[in-house]
Amino acid sequence: MHTMEMADIRGPQLLIDKTKCIANIDRIYNKAHKNNLLFRPHFKTHQSVAIGRWFREYGVDRITVSSIKMAYYFAADGWKDILVGIAYNPREYDLYENLSDKCNLQATICCPEAASILSRQCRFPMEVMLKIDTGYNRTGIRWDDTSGLKVTIDHLLKNTNIKIKGLMTHDGSTYGLNNRELIIEHYMTSVKRINICRDNSGLDDAMISVGDTPSASLATEFKGVDEIRPGNFVFYDLMQYINSSCRFEDIAIALIAPIIDIRPASGTLVVHGGSVHLSKENIKIGNQQVYGMLASTDNKGWHKPLNEVYLSSLSQEHGIVKCFDNSLLSCSKPGDLIAIIPVHSCLTADCMGSYMLTSGEYIDHMRGISQDSVFSL
Amino acid sequence: MHTMEMADIRGPQLLIDKTKCIANIDRIYNKAHKNNLLFRPHFKTHQSVAIGRWFREYGVDRITVSSIKMAYYFAADGWKDILVGIAYNPREYDLYENLSDKCNLQATICCPEAASILSRQCRFPMEVMLKIDTGYNRTGIRWDDTSGLKVTIDHLLKNTNIKIKGLMTHDGSTYGLNNRELIIEHYMTSVKRINICRDNSGLDDAMISVGDTPSASLATEFKGVDEIRPGNFVFYDLMQYINSSCRFEDIAIALIAPIIDIRPASGTLVVHGGSVHLSKENIKIGNQQVYGMLASTDNKGWHKPLNEVYLSSLSQEHGIVKCFDNSLLSCSKPGDLIAIIPVHSCLTADCMGSYMLTSGEYIDHMRGISQDSVFSL
Repeated sequence: MHTMEMADIRGPQLLIDKTKCIANIDRIYNKAHKNNLLFRPHFKTHQSVAIGRWFREYGVDRITVSSIKMAYYFAADGWKDILVGIAYNPREYDLYENLSDKCNLQATICCPEAASILSRQCRFPMEVMLKIDTGYNRTGIRWDDTSGLKVTIDHLLKNTNIKIKGLMTHDGSTYGLNNRELIIEHYMTSVKRINICRDNSGLDDAMISVGDTPSASLATEFKGVDEIRPGNFVFYDLMQYINSSCRFEDIAIALIAPIIDIRPASGTLVVHGGSVHLSKENIKIGNQQVYGMLASTDNKGWHKPLNEVYLSSLSQEHGIVKCFDNSLLSCSKPGDLIAIIPVHSCLTADCMGSYMLTSGEYIDHMRGISQDSVFSL
Repeated sequence: MHTMEMADIRGPQLLIDKTKCIANIDRIYNKAHKNNLLFRPHFKTHQSVAIGRWFREYGVDRITVSSIKMAYYFAADGWKDILVGIAYNPREYDLYENLSDKCNLQATICCPEAASILSRQCRFPMEVMLKIDTGYNRTGIRWDDTSGLKVTIDHLLKNTNIKIKGLMTHDGSTYGLNNRELIIEHYMTSVKRINICRDNSGLDDAMISVGDTPSASLATEFKGVDEIRPGNFVFYDLMQYINSSCRFEDIAIALIAPIIDIRPASGTLVVHGGSVHLSKENIKIGNQQVYGMLASTDNKGWHKPLNEVYLSSLSQEHGIVKCFDNSLLSCSKPGDLIAIIPVHSCLTADCMGSYMLTSGEYIDHMRGISQDSVFSL
């Protein structure tokens, strides 16, 4: 079998360690199974049919996606139970209707106005999840807005095609917390609030679905939850490592980038690897604003974190590596490859639009296909 | 002729006003012509064959690109004089050699180490530009590092295939300055420094090439400059508007995004339009960290800036529009479209990977083609 050699890489290349991905899937799958939870992983992180099949081999048969386009992409590979996790856009009604012939599709309703419009539009049997804001303050009906919830439900129930399946929340606040105790406490509050909301809704058999990688990774108690929808855990990244959701060795993704400039007077190396490759996502570590962490490499991939260097800024195609000691600087030359652990793997994968496995094989990302062809399912 | 109707747009769509692009090209082209400057626009902003042809109709016959891949993309459309503006990566030697048969290609050398490697590699006639750091501190040889420059030149001249064509700088510091006087002062310093560097280099007939949109837009005096390489001006964006390089009405690009959630209690609207569409680039306006500015729309495009609302945060697929008064909030419903002026148009275009013109026509972006097919020229 051909295996990847770093020598095969010329420019910026996103590299995936399948063994680590499988271990990450295994860990969360088993946690879900052990706690009698439905497991509906969010596929917006990888957006890959090939990686989707790794989940399917575990028996996963329901997924979350972040756009109707992504629903088509995975439905084309045979996925039959798909929650479109982004708020319903009435301009996409026909796309929902067409896809509903091929799979069990759920839409997400976030506000009374959307419920009212969908109720007037809907001419086919449609399942709906109600998005509840348990404190993240991004989208959805506030958990304590009992009248807003009632109006939303009343709109939907006017149309007998619509079935309200459950209540869902995504509390992204956990991404910014930086220890296990805070994340678990936040998660418990979120679960408590969505259950209060369900109790007030009159929807006695509505399921409860929660979704974020930190709580799925760290929580051990899932009372009051029927389904989990984490996504990022398949790769993890620097943000999840910093917030303690994973160990460094669980991170399954790195951008391999060539050094193109050596600047001893500035204490920097420059790589071909910029915001069009990594995204401009950054995170504060100590006093530093960091766009990526470096890891040691050999000919087969990446290994340990390098602590005396970090990615300190990005422009469109360039990344600046700040070196606090001279060991990397003094032994580097243009053309050498470094491994960058991205701050936010979902965005880096979306920027790169394709993957190479450490085995040398290339696999798909939805970005690699043309817009038009997706909807032809 | 079919013209674009907003009604045709369902999800996030990048919209281009060709009339404004042409006016922007016209302005800089005429400025270059009047000042006897060579005009080598940077195509990394649009990455579009179709938009490249708008330049060609003006008589532009030389371009800058930010990767060897992009050089192939434009060479395939008949461009014959291409500067690869990113620092030379020795792993891409064969790609330079293959393309040099088809067009006049220039590589960019940023450090003595790259010069040494290229000097040992080069087996074909190759033109080289030396990248000089006039103060931006990103890439290149510092303008006052006379010995570093000498070593670099000595390495290159050892190989008679290599011809040093000139000295180039890109002083991106101007992007962050916020008035005309500061930008022009900074630009004059940069030009003075690269000329001192040339005088010290012994390369008496080396040309001087400078490139950034703020100085190309605002400077009126180009003594000591042979060539300009601005790129962003074809679209402009919020950053260039804030730093005074353009008027709001010169901005030729907007992301059209559907509203998907209405949240009066938070004073926010949520749109389908997130970091995978706009990039996470942001800018401080007053006390606000802004990810995009909103403009009024009608059925044909966008118009005036809306001052009481702005894009206040982004997640992967969501954009949060903060509304300081209730006029937009109270009249909006899910499915309504808004126009977002991006902070950094180069990155937004790269995220979106395709364009719709206000005439309704779709045009290309390099993102829309597969990696493999580019190098088959």
